Amino acid sequence: MSSVAASEAPVTTDPREVFLQRAAAVVGPENVVRPHAEEGYIDPYPLQAGRAKWPGVRPANTSEVQELVRLAAETGTPLWTFSCGKNLGYGGPEPRDHGMVALDLSRMNRILKVDARLGYAVVEPGVTFFDLFDHIREHGLDLWMSVPALGWGSVLGNMLDRGYGMTPMGDHVKNLCGLEVVLPDGDLLRTGMGAMEGTDLGPIFQGGFGPTLDGLFTQSNLGVVVSGGLWLMPAPQAFANGDIMVEREEDLPALIDVLTQLRREDIVQNNALCGNVVRAATMRGSRRDFWDGEGSIPDWRLDEMRREFGIGQWNAKFGLYGDPRLVRQRLEIVRERVTAAIPDARVDARVYEGEEGRRLEHERIAEADRTQMAGVPTLRPLSTVAWAADDGGHIDAAPIIPARGEEVYAFYREAKALYAEYGFDLYIGYHLYPRHMVHVTMIFFERGNEEMLARARELYSRLLDAARARGYAPYRSHVDYMDRIAAGFDFNDHAALRFQEKLKDAVDPLGIIAPGKQGVWPARLRDHSVKENSLDRIIG
Amino acid sequence: MSSVAASEAPVTTDPREVFLQRAAAVVGPENVVRPHAEEGYIDPYPLQAGRAKWPGVRPANTSEVQELVRLAAETGTPLWTFSCGKNLGYGGPEPRDHGMVALDLSRMNRILKVDARLGYAVVEPGVTFFDLFDHIREHGLDLWMSVPALGWGSVLGNMLDRGYGMTPMGDHVKNLCGLEVVLPDGDLLRTGMGAMEGTDLGPIFQGGFGPTLDGLFTQSNLGVVVSGGLWLMPAPQAFANGDIMVEREEDLPALIDVLTQLRREDIVQNNALCGNVVRAATMRGSRRDFWDGEGSIPDWRLDEMRREFGIGQWNAKFGLYGDPRLVRQRLEIVRERVTAAIPDARVDARVYEGEEGRRLEHERIAEADRTQMAGVPTLRPLSTVAWAADDGGHIDAAPIIPARGEEVYAFYREAKALYAEYGFDLYIGYHLYPRHMVHVTMIFFERGNEEMLARARELYSRLLDAARARGYAPYRSHVDYMDRIAAGFDFNDHAALRFQEKLKDAVDPLGIIAPGKQGVWPARLRDHSVKENSLDRIIG
Repeated sequence: MSSVAASEAPVTTDPREVFLQRAAAVVGPENVVRPHAEEGYIDPYPLQAGRAKWPGVRPANTSEVQELVRLAAETGTPLWTFSCGKNLGYGGPEPRDHGMVALDLSRMNRILKVDARLGYAVVEPGVTFFDLFDHIREHGLDLWMSVPALGWGSVLGNMLDRGYGMTPMGDHVKNLCGLEVVLPDGDLLRTGMGAMEGTDLGPIFQGGFGPTLDGLFTQSNLGVVVSGGLWLMPAPQAFANGDIMVEREEDLPALIDVLTQLRREDIVQNNALCGNVVRAATMRGSRRDFWDGEGSIPDWRLDEMRREFGIGQWNAKFGLYGDPRLVRQRLEIVRERVTAAIPDARVDARVYEGEEGRRLEHERIAEADRTQMAGVPTLRPLSTVAWAADDGGHIDAAPIIPARGEEVYAFYREAKALYAEYGFDLYIGYHLYPRHMVHVTMIFFERGNEEMLARARELYSRLLDAARARGYAPYRSHVDYMDRIAAGFDFNDHAALRFQEKLKDAVDPLGIIAPGKQGVWPARLRDHSVKENSLDRIIG
Repeated sequence: MSSVAASEAPVTTDPREVFLQRAAAVVGPENVVRPHAEEGYIDPYPLQAGRAKWPGVRPANTSEVQELVRLAAETGTPLWTFSCGKNLGYGGPEPRDHGMVALDLSRMNRILKVDARLGYAVVEPGVTFFDLFDHIREHGLDLWMSVPALGWGSVLGNMLDRGYGMTPMGDHVKNLCGLEVVLPDGDLLRTGMGAMEGTDLGPIFQGGFGPTLDGLFTQSNLGVVVSGGLWLMPAPQAFANGDIMVEREEDLPALIDVLTQLRREDIVQNNALCGNVVRAATMRGSRRDFWDGEGSIPDWRLDEMRREFGIGQWNAKFGLYGDPRLVRQRLEIVRERVTAAIPDARVDARVYEGEEGRRLEHERIAEADRTQMAGVPTLRPLSTVAWAADDGGHIDAAPIIPARGEEVYAFYREAKALYAEYGFDLYIGYHLYPRHMVHVTMIFFERGNEEMLARARELYSRLLDAARARGYAPYRSHVDYMDRIAAGFDFNDHAALRFQEKLKDAVDPLGIIAPGKQGVWPARLRDHSVKENSLDRIIG
């Protein structure tokens, strides 16, 4: 193992070939995907046309991951790690550059433990939200999980990228508890209390002894997480699926303020979602069903559409969970507070109750049209991707903003003007937390339409600039924008990035694991002129 | 700056003297405490007699901390960092060995910001719970904070050592949001969103871009935290101070199970506290007021005492917070559930309500006898230290245990037998979380009584062994036991400690900051034979 291994490799062939040949002895030839092969990896929604598929390996277990990591070090082959590759809108399985080999963990799909008494699970990275949901249902466990918009992705992958769902446990990374990690040298680490032999505290208590390590492995290239604990909530006896509709665009600040205050007071129990008319329209059809002109759909037409849909200018959804008496009392308080803030707001709710005081079964809610607030995985939002074209894609712009209504509104106005300038429809799905909100907007495009993609990229850049100028940054990033977003973290000559790089060099001196993930490059690729287009550098 | 600076220092004088002389130019001579000076630092409850006071420096601001850290590196002087030194039962300001100089941050006591709208504060390490409470009250802010048993300690220090309080935000480290840290090379780091210039998201959103760093600086020697953000809760409109009393020792498992289930379901909103008769007695007087024999107070006498006090064998306290209608509804559910589980349990509560729908003011609750559940700082529990002798001290043994009643009871029985074997009274104050509990027991002793201290140390060791045999470990440690507890984290040849050491060597290659904190030693002191008694080694 030497840091010069990469440069000693013969430059006449793709050095990945040596790795792939030797990897076949570890995982079996059927689990090695060759460059450009049909089943190769690619961003399903590429922001630039003409990208090629790239190769990968699919280990079955932890010891295979350890062998592959050691082999990568020996051959100087950087690995790009993902769980299921379903990180849509952020690059999917796409690496920072194509000189890497995919370390595809989707075959490691065992549910190692589910404890219904204390409410936790331990899973491998290949376990999807559907898998865990099915397990809980099949075993009749009184547990609810939290799911993101789409249920086919990895539970662990979503948590590690700091994704979220919509139940009271929807801030997923906060419910991550104890990791098992293959380090870049092949060593095996357990974090927290799980670092003791013969304990079951690993997925029960967050924190161990000394510096807490779990956070280091989120949005990270410091190791390969091979299993993790996560917390689940008891199935409630009742659940209320609440809706709030307001009539005016300018009602937004008051709506944000009242909902986040209700969240701070633990009356609304989940992160409420607040969407605009475009968002509602994407669930009812494609753009051409509503508007056949150029540019953003104009306000007058959006107002017509929302009246046709029977909805508000802003439409918020919230969830209430628990004893039916508390759910009803909470709902009454939500109504009081919202109508005190916005007198003509409409507050509706459908309350589901378990029969004879028993806990709720998911099936009844799963039949309803919206399910993520009840932790039921779905693929329904996938259809929205056809908004701009049948062969559609999207990129998400999701800065974090302080949960102050007037600030949110000011940024909304700026984003709206930018979308109009570039001729896209502003899709909004805000997620409201106690102190911050995630200002989720999407740009829908036609795949391979280079004119439209160029506009989308420029709009995305302008949105990033606008956010950064106000002190906001996205909580997560598409692979193509990681360096750019990292560059915005500029306090004291990028002290945070410099510290992350110091850790990277100490833990992964050869720079084998996911170089460039979230802008953190290993020393050998840190020179900016190299990393901008490092494919040729790495494959020689 | 060189790693051999320490060994090049003249061996005839204490190398700390060079540091202290030069430090006087940084902080002023009045803020340099000489070795053995009257105002020197010492564990107020030492576990061994005859310890000497040790020297320190008291910086006023971040740039002085940076200068001191650089000076420590130049002179090879290890610094032991603390905020206010009030970590009683864990060593107070005591370092791992006396070759170090105290970096006493108590003069850095500015409250940098309190935001009543979103509910957060930014404080320096010298800000105590009393300071922050007074600030909130004086400014009439509608906020409640969370406080630990004693209010004179550092807010930030408590959070960084992963201490807890008793409100809904009582798991303090979970409400830590954004740190400013002087690194061992004097560089200044901001974590999370605060790593951007010109943002106020630092104390608002947990997480930034790339690996999350905040956890690394808890129970840590990787840097000196000079300010941090923390979240506060809105003052509720109503607060219920609830009590549950059960008649039999063997009611404990059912009590643990019902209270933790209520917590998992978010009906009880804080971490309930469950104490035994000895705990109640320590608040009512000294041991000799109740028993003048040798050995543990026998069960028959404890039963007499609890009848005199009018309390149960186990006495739990819980808090309910928020809209008065929700508080009353929650209380009704608590009563139903507890009496369903333990029919003869007594459930009492005193409900405080704000006048005319306004938020509660603290004063009314502060007048009541118990205040920590309402976030009111106090020094009242300090009197319990006189249990064993007028000149008393204590050490806390607080392993984390899964919140399963039968497991808790089994460990309780084992601990009780050990306390009897060593002739101490078993003080219990369990803190009940959704999935784990903190099994807090204390050993009270007479300071300087070497016979009693020897028994206390042996009992403490036996308790550690008993916990480890069941897969439990303390969540926090007295300085004298850090190596021993760290050694219990033994998965894969102590992979977690080896990883923490790797980070230590990368971030603090000279081993300047708090060597040995939580068992993490820098490379130069890692040899076990050296670290066991390193005073002579370091001071030459």
